Amino acid sequence: MKLLEDRILKEGVVKAGDILKVDMFLNHQMDISLFKAMAEEWKRLYEGVPINKILTIEASGIGIAALAGLVFEVPVVFAKKAQTSNIDGDVYASHVFSYTHNREYLIRVSKQFLHPEDKVLIIDDFLANGKALLGLIDIVHQAGAEVAGCGIAIEKAYQPGGKLVRESGYRVESLAKIESMSEDGIVFG
Amino acid sequence: MKLLEDRILKEGVVKAGDILKVDMFLNHQMDISLFKAMAEEWKRLYEGVPINKILTIEASGIGIAALAGLVFEVPVVFAKKAQTSNIDGDVYASHVFSYTHNREYLIRVSKQFLHPEDKVLIIDDFLANGKALLGLIDIVHQAGAEVAGCGIAIEKAYQPGGKLVRESGYRVESLAKIESMSEDGIVFG
Repeated sequence: MKLLEDRILKEGVVKAGDILKVDMFLNHQMDISLFKAMAEEWKRLYEGVPINKILTIEASGIGIAALAGLVFEVPVVFAKKAQTSNIDGDVYASHVFSYTHNREYLIRVSKQFLHPEDKVLIIDDFLANGKALLGLIDIVHQAGAEVAGCGIAIEKAYQPGGKLVRESGYRVESLAKIESMSEDGIVFG
Repeated sequence: MKLLEDRILKEGVVKAGDILKVDMFLNHQMDISLFKAMAEEWKRLYEGVPINKILTIEASGIGIAALAGLVFEVPVVFAKKAQTSNIDGDVYASHVFSYTHNREYLIRVSKQFLHPEDKVLIIDDFLANGKALLGLIDIVHQAGAEVAGCGIAIEKAYQPGGKLVRESGYRVESLAKIESMSEDGIVFG
């Protein structure tokens, strides 16, 4: 999606440790008109695919998923993150390792909000190692629901997550795919 | 706002410890069409008031603020919460005590995203003791910006926060004001 790629080129900052800072428009300050355009692009890409719920994860996924909920006209559920390993019986939970924070955490969704008849579009801001996305897919399966597809804003395509999730049979639509990046520049695929 | 009050009566659950669970539509599963109606109500209430930025706090504020950003056509910034007391020099930060979690945390906003010329509408899901809201107001002041007003989904009007913030000279527009609640019922003001 050219609009998003152009924005990444203009305002994204590559930092040491494979970090792409997109705080300016994506995950600290949020450009809502950009989010709406992204949601409309996912709607176009998933035309004809039954989707009745969106699932994302706090905190950076919520804003994007909210606009997707508006455009798809479906409710949005966000998984909650906790450092505790306490699992309440009324939740679906999955352990996710975060490379960014170098620790494992637990993601949880109340059983009230996912059901066997749900066709779920999973939305997140980044896809790199795929651990968060696989955790969300795991939660959808625990509920007996179906993963209709995944919508990612920025995929680090040189990392293994995208391949892993696609080879497991899931459709992943990433609006910007980064083939390589360094402080000298960003190359999209 | 009758739409929100009716929804609270229908799906809200009062629990011991002064807890109102509104997970069904507000802060775990999100009803985006309700959020849009709430945003339109704030837009009506703040008609004629200059607002060029919305500020909220992760995680439950983000979805509501995203829809407000859409309706007001302004960018949305969310303050980040951290348990650490490390303050990066490039952020505005404020200490906030959470009665819900019975601990103090630090809320932070990058200095990049708040400027002296900003007229800020602060959005949050709940107002009770007012600690989070006062922390956000503190951050707006640190930036030399102006608080145009506050938009709250649910105010526990029997708690001191609303009075405290209004008596400090800020406009607070709460869409549902709870005068009292117990397991027997909820009374709006």
